[in-house]
Amino acid sequence: MYYLSTGLTKPLACDRRETPLRAGQYVGDRTVLTEHLEAVEPAAGQVQIEVAYTGLCGTDLHIVHGNMDGRVERPLVFGHEMSGTVAAIGPDVTTVSPGDRVTVMPLDWDGTCPACVAGHRHLCHHLNFIGIDSPGSLQELWTVPEHVVVPLSDHASLRHAALVEPVAVAVHDVRRSELTSGDKVVVLGGGPIGMLIATVARHAGAEVYVSEVDPTRLQQAAALGFRTLDPSQDDVQAAVTEWTAGAGADVVFEVSGAAAAVEAATGLAKVRGTIVVVAIHPTPRPVDLQRVFWRELRILGARVYERQDFDEAIRLLADGVVPADELITDVVPLEATASAFTRLEAGTAMKMLVAVQEGAAS
Amino acid sequence: MYYLSTGLTKPLACDRRETPLRAGQYVGDRTVLTEHLEAVEPAAGQVQIEVAYTGLCGTDLHIVHGNMDGRVERPLVFGHEMSGTVAAIGPDVTTVSPGDRVTVMPLDWDGTCPACVAGHRHLCHHLNFIGIDSPGSLQELWTVPEHVVVPLSDHASLRHAALVEPVAVAVHDVRRSELTSGDKVVVLGGGPIGMLIATVARHAGAEVYVSEVDPTRLQQAAALGFRTLDPSQDDVQAAVTEWTAGAGADVVFEVSGAAAAVEAATGLAKVRGTIVVVAIHPTPRPVDLQRVFWRELRILGARVYERQDFDEAIRLLADGVVPADELITDVVPLEATASAFTRLEAGTAMKMLVAVQEGAAS
Repeated sequence: MYYLSTGLTKPLACDRRETPLRAGQYVGDRTVLTEHLEAVEPAAGQVQIEVAYTGLCGTDLHIVHGNMDGRVERPLVFGHEMSGTVAAIGPDVTTVSPGDRVTVMPLDWDGTCPACVAGHRHLCHHLNFIGIDSPGSLQELWTVPEHVVVPLSDHASLRHAALVEPVAVAVHDVRRSELTSGDKVVVLGGGPIGMLIATVARHAGAEVYVSEVDPTRLQQAAALGFRTLDPSQDDVQAAVTEWTAGAGADVVFEVSGAAAAVEAATGLAKVRGTIVVVAIHPTPRPVDLQRVFWRELRILGARVYERQDFDEAIRLLADGVVPADELITDVVPLEATASAFTRLEAGTAMKMLVAVQEGAAS
Repeated sequence: MYYLSTGLTKPLACDRRETPLRAGQYVGDRTVLTEHLEAVEPAAGQVQIEVAYTGLCGTDLHIVHGNMDGRVERPLVFGHEMSGTVAAIGPDVTTVSPGDRVTVMPLDWDGTCPACVAGHRHLCHHLNFIGIDSPGSLQELWTVPEHVVVPLSDHASLRHAALVEPVAVAVHDVRRSELTSGDKVVVLGGGPIGMLIATVARHAGAEVYVSEVDPTRLQQAAALGFRTLDPSQDDVQAAVTEWTAGAGADVVFEVSGAAAAVEAATGLAKVRGTIVVVAIHPTPRPVDLQRVFWRELRILGARVYERQDFDEAIRLLADGVVPADELITDVVPLEATASAFTRLEAGTAMKMLVAVQEGAAS
């Protein structure tokens, strides 16, 4: 049995009531197990959440594949895309009450590093990304600091709200790009984040091409109303040049993580155009700096989100801007988490949700 | 004998008066020859300039080395850093008169391409860079369109004014970086442009480190009052981290053209810091996009200049902000142009000027 805490590694104090709960854990060796743990009663300034849904994302897949073994402790209760209901609050908690529907913005910053002092707390030098660097939401009861809890309306769909976190990523990426209505945008990579970026960009008034090699994802992008290109078959640069009357795209989002997409991106952007680096690139990638120079391009990194992005994501989901039902491929019980990863690996699923509570309707 | 024109390749019309002049030409095969050509009398909207000084820059060296044979016609009268006096004006010229001291902003745009229409004429898709794509200033009499002529004051030093163009490059690079007073800046590469960027950045209130491997240039940077680092000996990242109390540099200028500098740049910039790509990188360079993402860096290409940069460069030279005398290593006669390149190749010279007129005082 593992002791469970948030941002802490020491055992629970003896005077805390311990309730058994089910949790999904990465235990190393590409293995996810459902274990019974002790719940953490909320201390002062903490909120205990009954988790309804946890979405599985590419980072979780990286964790389970062992790619992040140098960063994560094992066993790790992962999960950082979630929705739920407040189960209990600790002393001094004032912003939520038991029964409130909530999600979590899983960033815990130190507030004192140079990035925090400069106002970029989401890029804290010592960021605790809850669900990666400390236990996450793939458990029935999850105790977190009050400041990461984001209230939802009483009518919010908890299924849809499990998408708030990835939608906030897309909102942040689009905001960072400074695109404006009428801009012509290319999204390289049509996975969940690429599709959400395309959605948010279109809502901001942009015209959007999604470039993707997977036929299923291409079909889904087309079904959602986006122009599509398949770089394994189409001459993407020629298509974008024609589409933009020779100018090039205003904004290119690199969401694929592929080296070839990086090389393509600089060729697609217009003079003074913007390339937003959203994907993880584990090794340095060849970049056509001659083109960056020649066209005075702007390459921007974009990582996670700020609170305003979370709030906007909640609005976009509530307003039906995000096609949540189309993006959620399936909802599975906690015990089926490992098989859900298999479907993500196979590329046959867009967004998989885990219904965390025992006997929860999928 | 070659017919000489500006932006034209056809022979002169028979009714134009032809005056012999001396010109330095790249004729291919790493060879620069002094030839006698016919002067071009200014047609309507053209200005004929008696060239006083032409500076030799890295691009000229690339031309002479044959690296740009795919772009330049041969023979080519090169040269685009210059100063002189108006010799004659064609009909309809209103902004300058014979005897005026002038320099030239050597950019001739079409005004109709997408970049021009968007207001970025200096990045015109079909830019005629005078001195590269059409005959330049390494000739005694140079005829150019009126709109590229930039007036100087009657008291301007023509020697110093030959630096206006490279200073305008530095002004543009610094303006593009959006650095503000108090910023901590690293300039990677201590050649003429690097030194000018350091100078302009310091004048804007920044504290500046110059990183350079050449001992002579390092000494010169130190003599000009800059902090210096030698990446072949110093741990540049550790030094910058300590200097910035762990934050990283606000702005990094990549002026070296070296792959290693590109790899270093992302490690030096602070969260949300800026990297300006000034140098030419002939092949794609490995870039640590993980760091770009992680720190939300901004990489900006910066190329040539706009008119406001030229005007600011003239002011900075007139005000003595730019240490022109220290940066001008030597002034040589036109016939010594080839040997001046040898000194540039050897790295023993910073800025070499050619005194273009016969018998001009060096």
